[in-house]
Amino acid sequence: MKKRKVYILRLNHRLSRDKRVTTHLLLAARAFGADGAFYSGQKDEKIEKSLEKVSRSWGGSFTVQYTQNWRKVLSEWKEDGGEVIHLTMYGLPVQDIVEQAKDSPKDKLIVVGGAKVPSEVYELANWNISVTSQPHSEVSALSVFLHELFERKELSWSFDKPGVRVIPQAKGKKVVRIEP
Amino acid sequence: MKKRKVYILRLNHRLSRDKRVTTHLLLAARAFGADGAFYSGQKDEKIEKSLEKVSRSWGGSFTVQYTQNWRKVLSEWKEDGGEVIHLTMYGLPVQDIVEQAKDSPKDKLIVVGGAKVPSEVYELANWNISVTSQPHSEVSALSVFLHELFERKELSWSFDKPGVRVIPQAKGKKVVRIEP
Repeated sequence: MKKRKVYILRLNHRLSRDKRVTTHLLLAARAFGADGAFYSGQKDEKIEKSLEKVSRSWGGSFTVQYTQNWRKVLSEWKEDGGEVIHLTMYGLPVQDIVEQAKDSPKDKLIVVGGAKVPSEVYELANWNISVTSQPHSEVSALSVFLHELFERKELSWSFDKPGVRVIPQAKGKKVVRIEP
Repeated sequence: MKKRKVYILRLNHRLSRDKRVTTHLLLAARAFGADGAFYSGQKDEKIEKSLEKVSRSWGGSFTVQYTQNWRKVLSEWKEDGGEVIHLTMYGLPVQDIVEQAKDSPKDKLIVVGGAKVPSEVYELANWNISVTSQPHSEVSALSVFLHELFERKELSWSFDKPGVRVIPQAKGKKVVRIEP
C-alpha cells in the first residue's frame, strides 16, 4: 500500500520518564513511512524540536503535533473518513488482520499507548491489533506494524529534500551533504 | 530460517540514561525470537531481573548475560563458528543482504550500539546492515531485522511453559493463567 495518509497517535507522554522512548517511537514512525504524529499527555518541546531537526537534516515532512485532547483527534479522524488501528498485545494477530487494513483505502491513524490505555480506545478503534501477544515495546510494535502495512517497500522509500544522505557501505560510514 | 542460535549483543549500556531503551530492546529481542542477549557497559541488575520475570510469566528461556568484555564475546562467537551482524544505519540495506544471512546456517550474533560504536565493530562484523538509512531506534532496527531474518514466522511462535497467555480479542483484554 502506498500512500494513503498514515499518522500515529501516541497517548499519555510523560516528560521525563518517556522522553527517549517517545523520541525513538516518533523517529521510527518517520523512518518507516508514516506522515506525521499526534501525541497527548505532557507537552514536550524538546521532542518536537528534535524531530524537526531530523526532518530538516534527513528530509521529508514528518510533522509532530501536540494535543490536549486525544479523543477529539480520534473522533475527527473518523468523521473525516479515516480508520483507527490500536496496537495492543491483547488485540488480534497482525498476521491475520493486516490484509484487511491494507485492502481498505482509507487513511489510517495508528494509536500507540503510553501507560494505562483507557478502555474507550479499544472500543473506538476499527481494529485492535497485536504484534505478537508478548510484552515488548511500542517502538518495535509500531515499526513491525508499519513494515507489514507498507509491505516492506518503506525500506526503499527516500525522503524529499534531504540535507544529508547515507551512502550504504559494507564497512564504515559514508554520509554526503546534499547541496540545495 | 528456524532455529539456529540467534543472540543479541547490546553495546555500552548506561545505567540511568538507557534503562528503558535497553529494556525495550531486550524485550523485543525475546518477543521476536532471539534466544538470549549479552550486554556491555554498566551492569544493571534491575534489567536482568525484569527480563527474568517476563520469561517466568510469559515463558521461554531467553537469557541475559552481562559482559565486561564485548570483544571477547564477539571473538569467541566467531571462534565457535558463528557469524556477526552489526546493525547500523550506515550499513548495506537489509532488503539487499538478508537473503545471504538467511542462507548461511551459522549461528548469528546481532550487535546493536549504544552510544559511540567503536570502528572495530564495523571491521569484525561479517555484515554491517542498515534497516533504512535513516535515524530511528535500535529497538525498531532490531525488531524489523529479526522479523526479516525469521521471515515473519516469529509472529506465530509460542513460548515454552508460560505462566500466563493472551487470548487475542477484537476488543478488550483476555489473559489466562496456565496451571503448570
